[in-house]
Parts: sequence; structure tokens; C-alpha cells
Amino acid sequence: MYQIYAKFTVKDDSTDEVLAVLGELIDETRREPGNISYQLFQSTGDPTILTVFEQWKDQEAIDAHNASAHFNKALTALEPYHAAPPVIEVYTLVR
Amino acid sequence: MYQIYAKFTVKDDSTDEVLAVLGELIDETRREPGNISYQLFQSTGDPTILTVFEQWKDQEAIDAHNASAHFNKALTALEPYHAAPPVIEVYTLVR
Repeated sequence: MYQIYAKFTVKDDSTDEVLAVLGELIDETRREPGNISYQLFQSTGDPTILTVFEQWKDQEAIDAHNASAHFNKALTALEPYHAAPPVIEVYTLVR
Repeated sequence: MYQIYAKFTVKDDSTDEVLAVLGELIDETRREPGNISYQLFQSTGDPTILTVFEQWKDQEAIDAHNASAHFNKALTALEPYHAAPPVIEVYTLVR
């Protein structure tokens, strides 16, 4: 099982726009057969930090997600709002 | 609901020792009533990066965990093995 951590630091006045884009992405992604969970969290210390915590069945599921129309549409839609480069980390379960 | 991301970068030759400490901590923590999940993952790109992804019911549950004997014992036991300062991030669920 895989965990992806996708951290977005967004411009101060763009949180609503980003939440709208991510909301649509969440709905579509949770319908993907290889997705286990896909949850959006906000930093308690900094509301401009929005991080998606994702769990996936296997690498094939991640590849399918990365190739999907909804994922690529969201990536493009988010481009104007980044205040820092996104941080993406990929993990496998130890226990 | 809260998410905690606790990222440890450990010295090259210490992964086994760190996994032993974290294994004991995982067993104890999952028994805490306010813990929802507590999972240990390893970076796919760097085996010395070990991250615990934690979900908690509320702030009181986090406070109780931070005050617990098993948590503080593990913190002390991990001290010799850090290759970089741990990164701890705290989040609340958006959706």
C-alpha cells in the first residue's frame, strides 16, 4: 500500500479557489478503483498550507491517477495559486 | 479530526533500531482511545526517511498521547539516530 503526501502552499487570497479545485479532484479521485483514501487537510498553524493525504492500492493505481483527465485538469487549474513549489512525497507501508 | 505528519530522517546504519523503537510505539499508541490510525511508512526514494501518519479524534487525544510514558520513552530512544531534525506537521480535516 502506498501513501502520497502532496503539500500545497497557496497565495493568501486564493484559499477558496484552491479548495474548489481540490474539492472537484477529491470527488473524482475517490471514484477511482485503486484509491483507498484521499483526504484534504489544512495546517493548524498556517491556513495557506493545504495537504492531500492519499492512500493507494498499488503503483498501477497511482499511474492511472496521474494519467487521468481530472488530475491533469486540477494541476493546470492550481498553477496560478502556488506561493511555493508543491511538495510531493511517496511512501510504502512498513506497518 | 486531526492528522499529524511526523517525518524522521535517520542515520544510514540505524534503520533497524529505529523500526524497533517505532514498532513498540505503534503498538502502544493504537491502544489509545482517541487514536484513529497510526501508520509507519518509508520513502520510496530514500529508505532513511521514515514517516508516521497519524489520525486523532481531537486535541485532547493528542495531548494525552504527548503526555504518555510510551511516547516520551520513544522520543528519548530515537535521539541517537536522527540524521536531521524531525519534521512535525499538524492538520485539521477539510474534507
